[in-house]
Amino acid sequence: MKINGEHTRSIWQEQDGQTIGIIDQTLLPHRYATLQLKSCEEAAHAIKSMQTRGAPLIGAVAAYGLAMALRKDASDENLERAYRALLSTRPTAINLKWALDEIMAAVRNRPREERVAAAYKRAAEICDEDAAMSEAIGRHGLQLIEDIAKTKKPGEPVNVLTHCNAGWLATVDWGTATAPIYMAHDKGIPIHVWVDETRPRNQGASLTAFELGQHGVKHTVIPDNTGGHLMQHKMVDIAIVGTDRVTAQGDVCNKIGTYLKALAAKDNGVPFYVALPSSTIDFTVNDGVKEIPIEERAGDEVTKMTGRTAGGQIETVTITPDGSPVANYGFDVTPARLVSGLITERGIVPAERKALAAAFPDHASLKSLAKRAVG
Amino acid sequence: MKINGEHTRSIWQEQDGQTIGIIDQTLLPHRYATLQLKSCEEAAHAIKSMQTRGAPLIGAVAAYGLAMALRKDASDENLERAYRALLSTRPTAINLKWALDEIMAAVRNRPREERVAAAYKRAAEICDEDAAMSEAIGRHGLQLIEDIAKTKKPGEPVNVLTHCNAGWLATVDWGTATAPIYMAHDKGIPIHVWVDETRPRNQGASLTAFELGQHGVKHTVIPDNTGGHLMQHKMVDIAIVGTDRVTAQGDVCNKIGTYLKALAAKDNGVPFYVALPSSTIDFTVNDGVKEIPIEERAGDEVTKMTGRTAGGQIETVTITPDGSPVANYGFDVTPARLVSGLITERGIVPAERKALAAAFPDHASLKSLAKRAVG
Repeated sequence: MKINGEHTRSIWQEQDGQTIGIIDQTLLPHRYATLQLKSCEEAAHAIKSMQTRGAPLIGAVAAYGLAMALRKDASDENLERAYRALLSTRPTAINLKWALDEIMAAVRNRPREERVAAAYKRAAEICDEDAAMSEAIGRHGLQLIEDIAKTKKPGEPVNVLTHCNAGWLATVDWGTATAPIYMAHDKGIPIHVWVDETRPRNQGASLTAFELGQHGVKHTVIPDNTGGHLMQHKMVDIAIVGTDRVTAQGDVCNKIGTYLKALAAKDNGVPFYVALPSSTIDFTVNDGVKEIPIEERAGDEVTKMTGRTAGGQIETVTITPDGSPVANYGFDVTPARLVSGLITERGIVPAERKALAAAFPDHASLKSLAKRAVG
Repeated sequence: MKINGEHTRSIWQEQDGQTIGIIDQTLLPHRYATLQLKSCEEAAHAIKSMQTRGAPLIGAVAAYGLAMALRKDASDENLERAYRALLSTRPTAINLKWALDEIMAAVRNRPREERVAAAYKRAAEICDEDAAMSEAIGRHGLQLIEDIAKTKKPGEPVNVLTHCNAGWLATVDWGTATAPIYMAHDKGIPIHVWVDETRPRNQGASLTAFELGQHGVKHTVIPDNTGGHLMQHKMVDIAIVGTDRVTAQGDVCNKIGTYLKALAAKDNGVPFYVALPSSTIDFTVNDGVKEIPIEERAGDEVTKMTGRTAGGQIETVTITPDGSPVANYGFDVTPARLVSGLITERGIVPAERKALAAAFPDHASLKSLAKRAVG
């Protein structure tokens, strides 16, 4: 997608073939700056501090992180240590583990001298595959938008609501929830996006709004409280969000607050879709509400807010009273019954056990293997 | 309720018997400062700029505003002009109109020389009546909390979720949604309040957290996105919110985002109550979603956030990208079907047409009179 009119990916290999470049997403939308990662530790820090974020992009950064660890020390011991360190950076994202396992598989049975090249190669493939996956998700989701566009008067936009940032900044390119939006826009379909601010980290206001703006897509930033009202008044045609993990029965774990929008969509007959690469599906988990551990993040994400002062400085201010405790749950789970469908790289799949198993028999069978291994 | 351990009301007459004192709520929670209002214009400005806010308190300030207008010029013409100016400050709050009409009724048929004293007297009564009303709401709501407390293990708190500030800062004393909470706390019932931050103006994080903290009530500030997750995990026993207007059929207009919490409460079997003085009921309106005009407020409430810097300065920062438009709808409407009951000064009333008309036959009949006058 575009930054200042130029096609850009969210992760790239620098000229030296070793260093990894990423966009420092903690400075957006006020400053566009890139970061150069030179070690596994720097990759882990970038993930933990959310300089890089979004389930697919985290996977790509972690994959390169493992490659960089091997460059320092290609032993099995170091591989295991780096794997565990990278895996522990964010507990919820399932394809962090998937990407790390891909690198492990690519290097495990190789001699040490071949491991670095094999790891970098597989990490680069993961990036290309992710971009292709997002493009496929976009093509399938585009259909939904085209169908709505057909019901509109000429020039009247299709109104999409999204939560958090499941945009190209969260993936390698295109995004997941945004891929159909960018494709519709590029095809000339009038489209307008309601962008949930997404407290406490404001990924909607700072990232989704930024990337839509850079690509020229019409949008409006709204407080997270607003979506229900808009849906009641027929101002939303479709909601499309991303996800960090989908369970075998189609429950959707995503940024905190997604569940509230899904409830409002259901109550108002607004289609509610979730866009995801199939690596996000975790066939080892069934009931998302009961089984998925929800990450609790630092309280200062709630008590403090960062922005740009009138003088142009980046400043952080405290917005709660001294002595008032806060809670900061990172995600919630939207039960499958509230999900109209899952937009995947293989097409739109109902959020339902049998349909998911049928669409992804390869993934689903991994689960039974895993179960057998455990039992 | 208490500020620094001392009983305080949110509005008072100063020693001169003319000037009105209020708390400047735009500086909370970082600074506690009072404001002296000396004219109708200052009262109108205080309402418009939200230095004073909350439906009942707005009514009290407007009532005194009309009294101050009469002190300057007690003519019918000035009375009408001041009435219209005060009424236009906030379009949604129904008891702004109610309080103004009360002053009008108290002065209209009096000679000019008696009008000022009559207006101040009625305004003072409105304040005392409001405090008594809140106390009555508290007594009725306390029952709900006591019933939940009976199901808890010793020392285990009753968890209440609230949205925005329907606390004593929004009324003259006690608050509406908070009145049962303060009463339970004062009676020694263990209680803990989940305080919705309430973007974009953060009245929860800045006002509700402040007043609960000052009174010593345990609480936790949460982003508005969090309540659904908490309800899914049985961490909320009851939701209690305030309202700006309730319709004849029991629809509830309140701060934007209330509807989303009501949906989550319904989905998880959490009782969802609305606390209000009966002056908030508008029997001339039926379908809240269709009929109540929703105030759109300034965009900078969304694009900017005010707080305290590490150096202790109050600073405002911009949190959205330049060039990204925002929308700022102030309220939404929660359909009566999602409301467990209305906690009023006369008891708990179902959110339903017949029950409301039976509980408030005096108000309901005013409506038929109004209809007859129009027809």
